[in-house]
Amino acid sequence: MSAEETIVEVPAPSRSYEVRVGCGILDSIGEVTRAAAGGERACVITETNVGPIYANRVEASLAAAGYTVSTLTFEAGEQNKRLSTLETLLEGLAEAELTRDDVVVALGGGVTGDMAGLAAAMYLRGIQVVQAPTSLLAMVDSSVGGKVAVDLAHGKNLCGFFWQPSAVVADVECLHSIDRSLYTDSIGEVVKHAVLADPQMLADLTARPMNGEGYPDELVARIVAENVRIKRDVVVSDEKERGLRQTLNLGHTIGHGIEAASDFKLGHGSSVAAGLCCMARAACAKGWCKPETRDAIVAAMAAQGLPTDTELPHDVVFDYMTHDKKRHGDTMNIVVPAEIGAVEVRKVTMAELRELVDLGCGTGKED
Amino acid sequence: MSAEETIVEVPAPSRSYEVRVGCGILDSIGEVTRAAAGGERACVITETNVGPIYANRVEASLAAAGYTVSTLTFEAGEQNKRLSTLETLLEGLAEAELTRDDVVVALGGGVTGDMAGLAAAMYLRGIQVVQAPTSLLAMVDSSVGGKVAVDLAHGKNLCGFFWQPSAVVADVECLHSIDRSLYTDSIGEVVKHAVLADPQMLADLTARPMNGEGYPDELVARIVAENVRIKRDVVVSDEKERGLRQTLNLGHTIGHGIEAASDFKLGHGSSVAAGLCCMARAACAKGWCKPETRDAIVAAMAAQGLPTDTELPHDVVFDYMTHDKKRHGDTMNIVVPAEIGAVEVRKVTMAELRELVDLGCGTGKED
Repeated sequence: MSAEETIVEVPAPSRSYEVRVGCGILDSIGEVTRAAAGGERACVITETNVGPIYANRVEASLAAAGYTVSTLTFEAGEQNKRLSTLETLLEGLAEAELTRDDVVVALGGGVTGDMAGLAAAMYLRGIQVVQAPTSLLAMVDSSVGGKVAVDLAHGKNLCGFFWQPSAVVADVECLHSIDRSLYTDSIGEVVKHAVLADPQMLADLTARPMNGEGYPDELVARIVAENVRIKRDVVVSDEKERGLRQTLNLGHTIGHGIEAASDFKLGHGSSVAAGLCCMARAACAKGWCKPETRDAIVAAMAAQGLPTDTELPHDVVFDYMTHDKKRHGDTMNIVVPAEIGAVEVRKVTMAELRELVDLGCGTGKED
Repeated sequence: MSAEETIVEVPAPSRSYEVRVGCGILDSIGEVTRAAAGGERACVITETNVGPIYANRVEASLAAAGYTVSTLTFEAGEQNKRLSTLETLLEGLAEAELTRDDVVVALGGGVTGDMAGLAAAMYLRGIQVVQAPTSLLAMVDSSVGGKVAVDLAHGKNLCGFFWQPSAVVADVECLHSIDRSLYTDSIGEVVKHAVLADPQMLADLTARPMNGEGYPDELVARIVAENVRIKRDVVVSDEKERGLRQTLNLGHTIGHGIEAASDFKLGHGSSVAAGLCCMARAACAKGWCKPETRDAIVAAMAAQGLPTDTELPHDVVFDYMTHDKKRHGDTMNIVVPAEIGAVEVRKVTMAELRELVDLGCGTGKED
C-alpha cells in the first residue's frame, strides 16, 4: 500500500472494516476488495457522471484481482434515488448472476453510495459492498457508518437500512473532477464534524478555507481521515442511531427544513451550514451556549463561503422540520452546540422547536 | 390470555419475541402489540382478500389498546409482491406520520407478512412489526424467523432483509376463511417440518391428514405451535442463514425449480412436497438414505393429497434451480433427508445437482 495512505479502523458491531484515505489509491480497489470481501464476481454500481471518468480504472483493478466484473450505470442525480432505480439495479445484479459470496463496488458520490449500498443490503437479503466515494460528502460522511436509503415522495432518505461496507477506499484525487460548487457545499459537513469534536480543525478551517486556491491534496487527505475518525467514534458506539449517533445530526434539524423548503435548490452541505448557524444563534439566545461558540461556528462557515442563515419563511421551514425521521411522537431530539467540541442532545416539544426557528433563522443578527 | 393459547418464545439474536398460537385470539392483538412494541400509532397492512374479513376486528383491538390506527390495503396476489407495491405502502406509512416508535401490524398470509415486514424494516431504516398470519403457510413458516422479501422479474424473494417481528399472533380460526386448496398446499411445509425434526408428527399426519373432514381446531393449533417450535430451534441458532438454517430449505431446491418451471401455477407447498419427494428418491438412489425414509416421506405427502413427483422437463426445472439464492459460485448446498428427524447439508456441483434431478424427478418409480 502507498505510503500516503491512512487507514482508519471502524469496528462497528455488525461488521468491522477499514477506511483507506490517500492520494491516487483508486487503483488498489481490486486488492482491497479481494482481501476484505472475497467472492468471484464484482459488480460496479456507478452513475452517468462518475462512471465515464473512473469506471475503467476500477474495472481493471478488480479484474486484475481475479474478479469477473460487470458494471451497472444509473442516471446521475438525487431525483433518481428512488425504489424504481433500485429495482433496475437489483435486476442487474440478478442478471449478472451474483451470488451471496459476491460483492458490489459503489463508485460515486453520496447518491451512488446509497443506491449501491441499499442494493447490496437487499440483494439475496444482503451481500457485501465496498465503497469507493468520489465526492467530499461521500468521503467524510455517507460512505462511513452504513446508513443507506432512498427517497420517498414524502421526503428524503425515508426508506433504507443500516448496512456496513466491507471496506472504503477514498482517493482524494477523485475530488479534482468534482464540480467546485458541489465541493464547497460538502465542506459544510466537514465544519460540522469540527464543531462536534475538533476545535483545532475548526480554527484551521477558519484561517485557511478548504476550497481556497492551492489547497494541497495531502492536507485534504488528512482532513478527510480526521473526519472519518470523528464519525467512526460516534458510529461505533451507537450503530443504529438510538443515542450518541444523533449528535451527527448537528445542524440537520433546521438544515433539513431549509433544504426541503428551498425545494432542494440549496445543497445539503449548505443547508447544514445554514441550519447549524441558525441553531447556534437560537442556542445562544436560550443561554445554551456562549456567544463565542456561536460566533466561531458562523465565522467558520462564512470563511468557506457557505450560507450562515436563511431568508425562507419560518412557517415553511418548520413544517418540513416536523417530518424529520428523528421525531418521536410530539417531541424531537435536537443537537445543540454547547461549546466547540461538545454538543448536547435536548428533547424539545414542537412548540419549543418552533420558538428556536424564530430565534435562530432569518434574523441575520449576531447579537 | 386465553387458556387455549400456546406461547412459543423465539430468542433470536437480533430480537426476542413471543409467538402466540390459539383459537379465537385475534382480538388480543391490541394488548399484545401494546406490550411487545409500544408506540402511539399502529398501521395495519393487509390485502384485498383478508382485509374485508378481519381488519375491523384488528383495528378495534388496536384502538382499544390506545393506538391511533390507520390501515393500508394492497391488491392481493403474489404478482403484487414487488418494490412498486412496497413503495406505495411506504408512502402510506409516511402519510400516516408513523415515527420510529410506532408499529406496523401485518394482517394476512405470506405475501402480506413479506410486504408489511419489509415495509417496517425499511421505513425510517426500521420500525417494529407485529405479524398476524391468517394462512397456514404464514403461521407455520413465513411469520416466524424474520425473512422478508419481494420478488424481482428474475425470481421470487430475490430482494429483502432479515427483520424479526416484535410478536406473532396466530389465530387458527382465521384458517376457516382460507380457500381449501390453498390450505392443503400449505400442509407441504408442515410435512417438511415433520421430516426435519418430528417422526411422531409425520406418522400422525400420514395416519390422519390435516385437511381431513372434522379435523379439530385444537389439533391444528397444536400442530402449528409444534411447527413454530421446530422452526424456532433452527432460526435462533442461525438467524442469517449461514449454516443450520439452510436445513429449512429441505425440499426447496428442486421445489423452487418445479414451482418456477410450472410458471407458479403449482403452489409453493405443493412444489415443496414434490421437490422433497424427488430429493428423497434421488438421495435413496445415491445411498444417502434408506428406502423406508424415502417411502415415509412420499406416503405422508400423498396422504394429504399433495403431489409427490413432477412431469415437467428436467432441463427446465434444473435451469430454474441454478438461479437459487443458495448457490455459491458453481456449487450449491442441498438438504438431504438422511432419516426422518435428521437431515444433512451437502455441497454439490452443478453437474451433480443435474444428476439428482434425473435420479429423483419424473420417474414415478418407488423401486
